[in-house]
Order: sequence, then C-alpha cells, then structure tokens
Amino acid sequence: MRILFLGDLVGRAGRQVAIDQIPRLRTKWKIDLLVVNGENAAGGFGINEDIYESLIEVGADAVTLGNHAFDQRETLVFIERAERLVRPANYPPGTPGRGSVLVELHDGRHALVMNLMGRTYMDAMDDPFALAERELAACPLRHRADAILIDFHGEATSEKQAFGHFVDGRASVVVGTHTHVPTADQQIFAGGTAYISDAGMCGDYDSILGMDKEEPIRRFTRKIPSGRFEPATGEATLCGLAVETDDATGLAMRISRVCIGPRLESCLPKFW
Amino acid sequence: MRILFLGDLVGRAGRQVAIDQIPRLRTKWKIDLLVVNGENAAGGFGINEDIYESLIEVGADAVTLGNHAFDQRETLVFIERAERLVRPANYPPGTPGRGSVLVELHDGRHALVMNLMGRTYMDAMDDPFALAERELAACPLRHRADAILIDFHGEATSEKQAFGHFVDGRASVVVGTHTHVPTADQQIFAGGTAYISDAGMCGDYDSILGMDKEEPIRRFTRKIPSGRFEPATGEATLCGLAVETDDATGLAMRISRVCIGPRLESCLPKFW
Amino acid sequence: MRILFLGDLVGRAGRQVAIDQIPRLRTKWKIDLLVVNGENAAGGFGINEDIYESLIEVGADAVTLGNHAFDQRETLVFIERAERLVRPANYPPGTPGRGSVLVELHDGRHALVMNLMGRTYMDAMDDPFALAERELAACPLRHRADAILIDFHGEATSEKQAFGHFVDGRASVVVGTHTHVPTADQQIFAGGTAYISDAGMCGDYDSILGMDKEEPIRRFTRKIPSGRFEPATGEATLCGLAVETDDATGLAMRISRVCIGPRLESCLPKFW
Amino acid sequence: MRILFLGDLVGRAGRQVAIDQIPRLRTKWKIDLLVVNGENAAGGFGINEDIYESLIEVGADAVTLGNHAFDQRETLVFIERAERLVRPANYPPGTPGRGSVLVELHDGRHALVMNLMGRTYMDAMDDPFALAERELAACPLRHRADAILIDFHGEATSEKQAFGHFVDGRASVVVGTHTHVPTADQQIFAGGTAYISDAGMCGDYDSILGMDKEEPIRRFTRKIPSGRFEPATGEATLCGLAVETDDATGLAMRISRVCIGPRLESCLPKFW
Ligand SMILES: [Fe+2]
Ligand SMILES: [Fe+2]
Ligand SMILES: [Fe+2]
Ligand SMILES: [Fe+2]
Ligand SMILES: [Fe+2]
Ligand SMILES: [Fe+2]
Ligand SMILES: [Fe+2]
Ligand SMILES: [Fe+2]
Repeated sequence: MRILFLGDLVGRAGRQVAIDQIPRLRTKWKIDLLVVNGENAAGGFGINEDIYESLIEVGADAVTLGNHAFDQRETLVFIERAERLVRPANYPPGTPGRGSVLVELHDGRHALVMNLMGRTYMDAMDDPFALAERELAACPLRHRADAILIDFHGEATSEKQAFGHFVDGRASVVVGTHTHVPTADQQIFAGGTAYISDAGMCGDYDSILGMDKEEPIRRFTRKIPSGRFEPATGEATLCGLAVETDDATGLAMRISRVCIGPRLESCLPKFW
Repeated sequence: MRILFLGDLVGRAGRQVAIDQIPRLRTKWKIDLLVVNGENAAGGFGINEDIYESLIEVGADAVTLGNHAFDQRETLVFIERAERLVRPANYPPGTPGRGSVLVELHDGRHALVMNLMGRTYMDAMDDPFALAERELAACPLRHRADAILIDFHGEATSEKQAFGHFVDGRASVVVGTHTHVPTADQQIFAGGTAYISDAGMCGDYDSILGMDKEEPIRRFTRKIPSGRFEPATGEATLCGLAVETDDATGLAMRISRVCIGPRLESCLPKFW
Repeated sequence: MRILFLGDLVGRAGRQVAIDQIPRLRTKWKIDLLVVNGENAAGGFGINEDIYESLIEVGADAVTLGNHAFDQRETLVFIERAERLVRPANYPPGTPGRGSVLVELHDGRHALVMNLMGRTYMDAMDDPFALAERELAACPLRHRADAILIDFHGEATSEKQAFGHFVDGRASVVVGTHTHVPTADQQIFAGGTAYISDAGMCGDYDSILGMDKEEPIRRFTRKIPSGRFEPATGEATLCGLAVETDDATGLAMRISRVCIGPRLESCLPKFW
Repeated sequence: MRILFLGDLVGRAGRQVAIDQIPRLRTKWKIDLLVVNGENAAGGFGINEDIYESLIEVGADAVTLGNHAFDQRETLVFIERAERLVRPANYPPGTPGRGSVLVELHDGRHALVMNLMGRTYMDAMDDPFALAERELAACPLRHRADAILIDFHGEATSEKQAFGHFVDGRASVVVGTHTHVPTADQQIFAGGTAYISDAGMCGDYDSILGMDKEEPIRRFTRKIPSGRFEPATGEATLCGLAVETDDATGLAMRISRVCIGPRLESCLPKFW
C-alpha cells in the first residue's frame, strides 16, 4: 500500500500548498492512503468544518489533529459528524470525536489511522502507550487492517522513539508531528515499522513554526506578550512522509521523506 | 571558510565513528574549522579529559557541550586547562571553563565558537539571547572573527528558530543540538546565517537517543526506573552539518546536512 | 471517627518524631484511624520494609507514598506483602502494590485510604480524577466505608483544590502532600469534605524540604550538582491534620492542623 | 519596624477586603510599612492604574506583582509613573517599571521593597539569586535601608526556601507569593530573616485559587477549555504576614501569619 502523510498544515499558506499538491501527488504516485495533520489549519489554531471538508474533497482520506484539536469552538460540534477527522485518542473518555478511524480504500482494503499525544513537556493526557496496546490488540495488523498509521503528536524525541519501538512490528507507520520541523531520521525498524520523529509542517519556513517571526522573538527576549501569533504568509513548503507497505505483512518496505517548496532542500521518494 | 560540525557523540560508538571519520573528512573536504559536540561522549554522560584530548588530536578544533557538561566530576577540574572545550556560556558567572573560544586556524584566520543552552523545557540558565547579544557586540563578525559558529543546545524548535533569526546576519552558523535527532530544515536565512534546528547525534540509531532501548521504554510504560541508561553498542551513524562561508562577509554561502553510517539515509555535501 | 494524618516523614529525624509521638497521640486523642505518608522515610528517598513495619507497630493504620514510592529497590518486592502500604493508585495497571486499602478499625468500622498523584509539574501518571471517580463509585462513602481519606500527592495548589472540590461530599478527607510545607487553608468544603492543600512534612524545618540546605542552594545558584541530598539531622517538627467525621454521614465535622516541635508555631486540635 | 504584607489580591472580592481592612489594620497595629501583592487585582489578571492608586490611597506603601504583572496592556504605560508599583526585578533589563523601590516612611526611616520571580515550574527569567546578591550589595541592610522586604513570587517550595536561606541575615523579610494558599511555616531563620513560603491570597477561598471552581475543574477532567477563568465573588478572606523588626539590626524579632475572613481559621499577631 502506498501511503502519503503530510505534517501540520499551518494557516492559509499551509492549507494552500496541501490543497494544490494533494490531487497531483495522489495521481502521480498512485497513493492509496493519504493522511494530513490539520491541527493548525485554521489561522494556526485548530480546524473548522470548511477546512476539513476541503481537505477531504481534494483527496485526504483522513485528517489528524493534536494539542490544538479543539482551539476552534465549533470543533466540539462538527467533529462528531466529521467521520474522517481523528483527534488524539488519549483525550479523556467521553471527549467528542474519535481517536482512530478505519478507512476503506477505493479497492476495499482497510487502513487504520490513529492519533495519539505524547506527554513529555505536554499536557497530562491518558497513557498513549497503554492505549496503543489496547487499540492494536482490538484491531491487529493484517486481521482487521491492511495497514496501520499512527500520528504520534509529541515534543520529546525520546518519547517518540520509545513509542515507535514499542509498537514496532505492530503498526505499519509511526509518524511524529508537533515540532513543525522535519527530521531526517526516517527508517524502517527491525520489526518492520516505518518511523520518523517528525514529518515537519506544511507552511512558510521563513517563520517560527509557521508563524510570523516578530512576536515569538519578542516573547523570548522581553518575556511580555505584545500581540497575537499570526501565521506567516510567505509561500509554503510541503513536508511529509512516503511509505510503501507490503500487503502480505502490513509492514513497511520503503520509506522516504517528502519535501516540496521554496525554502527547504527538495526531497521526493525515489521508489515511485 | 569550510566548516564541519558533528552532533552529540554518544558513548563509545559515537566516539569511534567521530575518531574514525574526522581525519578522513578534514582532508577530503579541506575543512578549515571542525567542531564536535561531546556532551554525551563519556558513557552517555559528559566528557573526560582523555576523550577530549583524543578528539582534539584527531582534528577537532573545538568541542562543545550542553546540559550534560559537568556529568563527569573531573570536568570541573580539567575544563580550565582544556582550552578548546566550550561549555554553555549561559551557566552562572564564575562557572569553570569558557562559553566561547576564538580558534586560530592553520592559516591565521579566526573563528569564534560559542555554546549556549536553551531554556524552554530545560533548566533555568541565564538568558541566551541577551548573552549572544553581548558576545556578538564584543566580537563582531569580520572584525575579530572571520566566522562565528554557535551551538545552541536546546529542546524546543520554537526557541531554536527564534534564536537563529535573532542572530541572523551576525553569526555564520547556528547549529542546534540536544534532541539527538537530525532535522532536515537546514537553510541560509535572509541575513546570511546558516541554520539547522538539530545536527543529530553521532551514535547508534537503533536506540533511544543513542541509549539501549529497553530501559527508556520501561520508564515510559511502567513509570519506575529499573536500571541505568547504557549507550547502545551497535555501529554508529555520524550526523552533522557542513557550511561554507564567504570570507568577505563571514556569512554562509552553502549548507548541507552530513550523514554517514548504517541506519539513516546517507547525505553528503554536494558542493565539496 | 477521629482521624490523624501525618505528612511526609523525612529521613531519620522525621521517622523518630513520628515513632515517638504516634503512640502518645493515638491514646491522648483517642484516634480511630492514623495514616502516615512515608515516601521520604528512608534517607529521604522511599521506604523499606523495616521502616514500614516499625510505623505499623507503633500504631499507624496505613502508610501512603508518592513520587518517591519506589526509590528503594526492595519496595517492588515487599510492597506486595505490606498490606497497609499504599502507593499512588494512578501508577500504570500492573504496578506492584495497591493504590488503596480498606482498613478495618478496632471496633469493626471501615476506612478507605487512597493515595493519588497529581500531574501538574509532575510525572505523567494516569488521570487521578477519573480514577477517584471509579474508586468512589466502587466503594461509596457509608456503604462500604465509614470514612474515606485520600492523600493527594501533588505540587500545584490549583490541581489539589480542584481535586478536593471534585470529590467534595464523596470523601471524608482530602489531604495534600509532597510540598513538605504545611498550608493553613484547612477547611470543610460545602459538601462536607475536609480539605488541606498540604499537611507539611515531619522533619527538620531548618532545612530545604527536610534536606541539608547546602547542596540545594548550590544547585540553584551554580546549576551544577556537587554532592548528594542528605536529610537534615536537627530535631524534627511533626506536621499533620486532625479530622473528626460524623459516622452517620461519613463527612467531616471538625478539622485542625497539627504541628508539634521546635521550629514552627505549635498547633493542636482544640476539639479533642 | 512594624511590617504588614498582604498576599495576591484576587479580583473584586480581594480588592474589597484589602481596601476595607488596610486603614483599620494600619491604625490598630501601628503599621510602619504596608505592602500588597496586586498581580491578580484586575479581574484576576494583572493590575490597572485605578486599582493601583486606590491601594496607595487607602494606605499601601508599595504594591508588588508577579507573573501576571503585564496582563493588562495599560500596565506597560502607567508602570513608569507608578512609583510604588514593583514588578519582578528579574524581568530582562529594559523592562518598563522597577524591580525594587526604596520607600521613605512617615518618620524618615527607609524600607527597600523588592519583587522577584522564581524559575522552577515558571517562565525562564533572569537569575533571582544573582540579582538579589547584587541588589543587597548595592543597598545593604541598615546602611541604606532600615528594613528590606522581598516578595519572592514562585511555585516551588524548594526554591522559595533556598532563596530564603540564601539571603538569611541580609533581608528583614522574605515572603512567598503565587500559590494563593497560605502556608504555616513562618519562622525567623538563624540569621534573622523572617520567612514564609506563601502569604496566601486575599480572595474568596470557596474557589480554585480565587477563581470560580467550575472552569478549572473542567479543564483538569476534560482537557478542553470551555470558558474563561472568572474571579469567585463570595466574601473574601484576607491573608498575609506580620513582622516586627529591630531597627538596630534590621532583622526580624517577631513573625505571625495574618488571616481575617469567613472561610479560613482566623489568625492575628499576638504581639501587637
Ligand atoms: Fe502543530
Ligand atoms: Fe501541536
Ligand atoms: Fe546530547
Ligand atoms: Fe543535551
Ligand atoms: Fe515527600
Ligand atoms: Fe513527593
Ligand atoms: Fe497570584
Ligand atoms: Fe502568580
């Protein structure tokens, strides 16, 4: 199965590059499963129904979130009817929305897309390790899902790597998000799980995490907020991960970073 | 000036790959300035005098450190006579050792190597922004130094990017360390400063941050330590950054990640 | 029911004052239920079987713990047979020991003693609110327990107060521990739960949290450890909480701080 | 010198109790120096010029602040002309306002009032220990100031106690603020400095830190904000610290908590 994941879309620039590129890349690379992290799509903070729907329309199979999942108030409402919108599974039980979705592909194969939040240097959510354990037991690879992709939204590289190895052989892909910086540590672990610590954001890389540089620098140097964070408006660079799995095992055979745009070194999967 | 920086050496595996590769790379790429982060060189925790000297002997011009600077007790003593060992400059005044060193190159040019620690999700050190401001005023690029390299040892990508832009045009290179994961966001900022959020470690990438996987995973899942962290012993991958500066301006002209070894995708500077 | 709780015993000084005073106070005040927090009893870090047994022998009905629960390696073993040793209930499922104990009093009444850890500025444990909800449903006040005491071991006053109000009317006593400083905010909430943000430690108050002052001050000023933390050895002050509940409702009728010793202002329950 | 300090005023209830009580207590106890922490006086977040002036008018000699110092935008402007408004001294150099003020008392004596912020579990400010060292050298007790009061605004009891002992003998009073909970650990240290870990707030103690209980509890249990924090509106309890110093030494002779109001146990200085 050919899988393409795009990291956190930040603001209008990030949405635009995703909407422009998704149809083209789906076709060109014959993508089977395309997942996008949308936690910063609405002005940098959360997502709304229009944006969610536009992403599904252009070809996303699922949209994952993170710590900004509920920044837009309307999300608490529309998330229930947004069947392919996935918020971190380790919110408390009873939280609106879903923590994973079993996507049916065009040809009848199934892929499980799960979203989890790390806890190191982040809010105290339920245990993502224990929760993954349960979910993977309930929907084991190859039995109910031909592929399993987990978007692990976290800060610390230690926790992300530990999680990747923890599910090695039980998930097809563990892709980190949240730092808004692509890492270059993509590899296929010994058990067959494709792993990267962070997919990076889709946004303007002449910025601080996709936001205008001025206010963040001021807060670091002056310790007093003097305005709001606004998404940077320069041309966006698209960052993500491409993985090809073996349908016989559900495990990864090939992995490549994806990077298309004006500011970072270009990177395309050589195997497609 | 041709600059090569190698990220945190972790344990014996990390030291070995650095010691094996430094002489070869220096010669092959005609490196003028070679800097290594050694904060995890001694069994994963700090550095000792033997290791420091062996790194200088094989060709490092300076060795930087980080939050593990003083993990080995002997460091408090030998750091005073280790003239090219640089600990974070934002330790409290009076801390043994130095926060920057002006290296004289073989041909008489000078390079300033500075080490700073971030404060987001890390210990509360002195302000690295204010300190860089002062240091750069005292030793401005092109006046007293032909090149300035700052190893910014930090956790949060926001703080690293903010710092990079803060000194943009005033330093030749800002290279992040500490997360032990190479990022792929290397670029030359508008003002001419070469930047990468993290150089990655030199160590075994079948590991968690260069350490054996078992104990870290156990701590995340069980919340009870059951042993010590030990460096992983598999073959190391070398990770770093290559930058070429323009001697007329002291600013960066070319930038490339460097990655050599068994587990991560290989990457070499195309311009040398 | 007359309940006496003593805060974190720190080192030899803390143990001594507890062992000296428990028999006397039990008799003098006709205590029905006496609970002690022992997480720092063994040299400041954790507890061992000898200490646990000596506390039970002199008259403690239960010993609670906290983030230092497993600092002594032997605890993982003896905790299973230590029937009145209670570690935080929100360790991951499968952790040795128990998170609550139903104590049978001398006259056949029962008291539930529970231990929970906060998560704000502390390690990411399971949700203490959700867990308390479940435990209180399984063992409701007056049905299976004549009184319920919860030792909430946490750092942030916001989380402690929120927890206290969350279980108000469902627990007899919520007593905070961990900061090693007694608070003076004891009150009976509207629903009938007795509450204090922190009971304070039993230890030498000419110290920093019960430990020798020199090393902690050095770490704050120099940012480099230069030795181990050692319990202060001056005469200890005993700190705790006294609560009297109404057996008809299981709720609190009277509350008083308890403070006996050389350094802090003395405080005794006026109602006994 | 007779010194009265009142902890963080929270919202209208906190302001009211302070304004009602200050004139009465000043007269009754013949207070020489009266200091109030006002960081939460304006709706729970910061302070404005009207509130500042009303506090000075009723008899406060100085108003200290904390991490909420600049929550109200107007503070950046009026703080320069508010000569007795003291924000934490360890904001970066160049921050508007002052970190200490030398108050001239009615009879010509002088008292230095300083405000500092802790860094443990708080934002990364400049080093409060180093800064106190410098300030106390520049304005030593008995030479330029007859008394020195430091409001140390911090979260962790370890840092507050370490700071207290660090300046023991060099300041008259170290009074902690920020946790909004009064501690009962007031004592005069060996060197003569009066110390308490926290003065507690002036506000409604049927609340969470002075704010309505509902929203904070919801955030702890659901992890999604669903509204703003609003000050609780019940009758406030006044909390603070009373200290009497010896003018010959500038050091403390007597110390007592102060607590007046409907919800916490009343406490008045017995020595006045
Ligand atoms: Fe994001
Ligand atoms: Fe995020
Ligand atoms: Fe490191
Ligand atoms: Fe580090
Ligand atoms: Fe403790
Ligand atoms: Fe504790
Ligand atoms: Fe406050
Ligand atoms: Fe505060």
